[in-house]
Amino acid sequence: MNDTAPVAPRPLAEPPAEVRDAPARAWTPAEARHRFRSGLSRPTAGVAAGHTQANLVSVPADWAYEMLLFCQRNPKPCPVLDVTDAGAWTTPLAPGADLRTDLPLYRVWDHGELADEPTDVLAHWRPDLVSFLIGCSFTFEWALEGAGVPLRHVEQGRNVSMYVTARQCRPAGRLRGPMVVSMRPVPPRHLAAAIRESSLLPAVHGSPVHCGEPSGLGIESLARPDFGDPVVAAPDDIPVFWACGVTPQAAVIASRPPFAITHAPGRMFLTDARDEQYRVA
Amino acid sequence: MNDTAPVAPRPLAEPPAEVRDAPARAWTPAEARHRFRSGLSRPTAGVAAGHTQANLVSVPADWAYEMLLFCQRNPKPCPVLDVTDAGAWTTPLAPGADLRTDLPLYRVWDHGELADEPTDVLAHWRPDLVSFLIGCSFTFEWALEGAGVPLRHVEQGRNVSMYVTARQCRPAGRLRGPMVVSMRPVPPRHLAAAIRESSLLPAVHGSPVHCGEPSGLGIESLARPDFGDPVVAAPDDIPVFWACGVTPQAAVIASRPPFAITHAPGRMFLTDARDEQYRVA
Repeated sequence: MNDTAPVAPRPLAEPPAEVRDAPARAWTPAEARHRFRSGLSRPTAGVAAGHTQANLVSVPADWAYEMLLFCQRNPKPCPVLDVTDAGAWTTPLAPGADLRTDLPLYRVWDHGELADEPTDVLAHWRPDLVSFLIGCSFTFEWALEGAGVPLRHVEQGRNVSMYVTARQCRPAGRLRGPMVVSMRPVPPRHLAAAIRESSLLPAVHGSPVHCGEPSGLGIESLARPDFGDPVVAAPDDIPVFWACGVTPQAAVIASRPPFAITHAPGRMFLTDARDEQYRVA
Repeated sequence: MNDTAPVAPRPLAEPPAEVRDAPARAWTPAEARHRFRSGLSRPTAGVAAGHTQANLVSVPADWAYEMLLFCQRNPKPCPVLDVTDAGAWTTPLAPGADLRTDLPLYRVWDHGELADEPTDVLAHWRPDLVSFLIGCSFTFEWALEGAGVPLRHVEQGRNVSMYVTARQCRPAGRLRGPMVVSMRPVPPRHLAAAIRESSLLPAVHGSPVHCGEPSGLGIESLARPDFGDPVVAAPDDIPVFWACGVTPQAAVIASRPPFAITHAPGRMFLTDARDEQYRVA
């Protein structure tokens, strides 16, 4: 694939797993954004190798301080990469990108209830919206892969499994809610590398918050994720749980701000930032 | 020294360097806070081994969002450890502490001008003040020391040298200003350890922002720090510069909010948090 060639819109909303991953890996972030802007919707794990992915949550300006404080008080699930000015849909993390159109799928929230799930939010945009870009664990998957850690959900062409936990975040003003986690089954011989590599990238959730028994987080069944897809583990795999940027959506559901826009879980914003940019050592 | 014994107020405001450091190292954070509350004022490098120190900046509530955003946009100089509710002088980082009295020395700012430098701010406190506790590089000095890195300012009983740089922070609303750095002379054979150990503690400024020629940061003379004391380097020492939590004070000076309270440079808030708590790997 030629990264610099113009890209025609693709009519296929969800290409079959077996055909979609090899080319998506080589897309540039700009190419991925262009495809998503043109209507393609798919999970973004494995897209645009080596680049930083971000969760989105946009709230009215009179909720912005509490959202930023909620993120500061819960830095494992909510590491903030950028905050826009009110009404702005641009970010220095991806010059030329439009936050209203360039994600694969959005969720629109009305008093904590899911009101719409569109592929762009042009019709829902408001001039008072402050947008938060929050680090995503798909970013450290490049480091895991580089260290030889197999990624079951990518191998299986599925979205990562995500779960609402029994752990409550530290509230901030009117915002409260449980921590959400993503889970990856990791073979025991790769566990040390998975922990080491993710730990060095705290801006995209860093080290795991839990390993092993899902009941330690109040999760009843790995087979029934709250978001994303069930993923098949090998017999010896250890479930490893990382804090997840869907946590602000759980806070929106629990706290019922009058309006919010988020990405759909697993369908992230592709930034131009290299993953290495967030590596601390 | 018995850490649990009651501590009498000490009348001596600034004990001579040669007598003060050995016992201060063994103080608990609560003991240090008690001494500072009782009127002792001294730089806090080397105080309460193994604990996390914090910079303080308190601004009126209508500046709080911009201060939090300024910190988010400039995470190297301004890593936020905690933000209080408006008017509150307590923090979960140090149960029982009083942010109005427990620092060695404060600065009170009126429209960006230094108005007072008291040992407590009870007379200046306002119910609309939101206080930010920001990570301090004195915290990673325990890790440097553990790795055998000599600390010239501690050896010499001096405050660390701090400099206003030519690098501008990314503004946030009405807040702008230059980045401030602290400098430690490091022998070449210890440079790798100094970088490695500090890198793993991003919440207390993490890796250095510059090494070597001070002109690279627009600093004219190491002998004339903008804050703190000049420190004598050994002939081969390399100056190593870390982003510094005095940066919000430079933003107060440049941006002139109507009112602010900060710590005095080098005279930090001692939290009960262990340094290890902020280690990412």
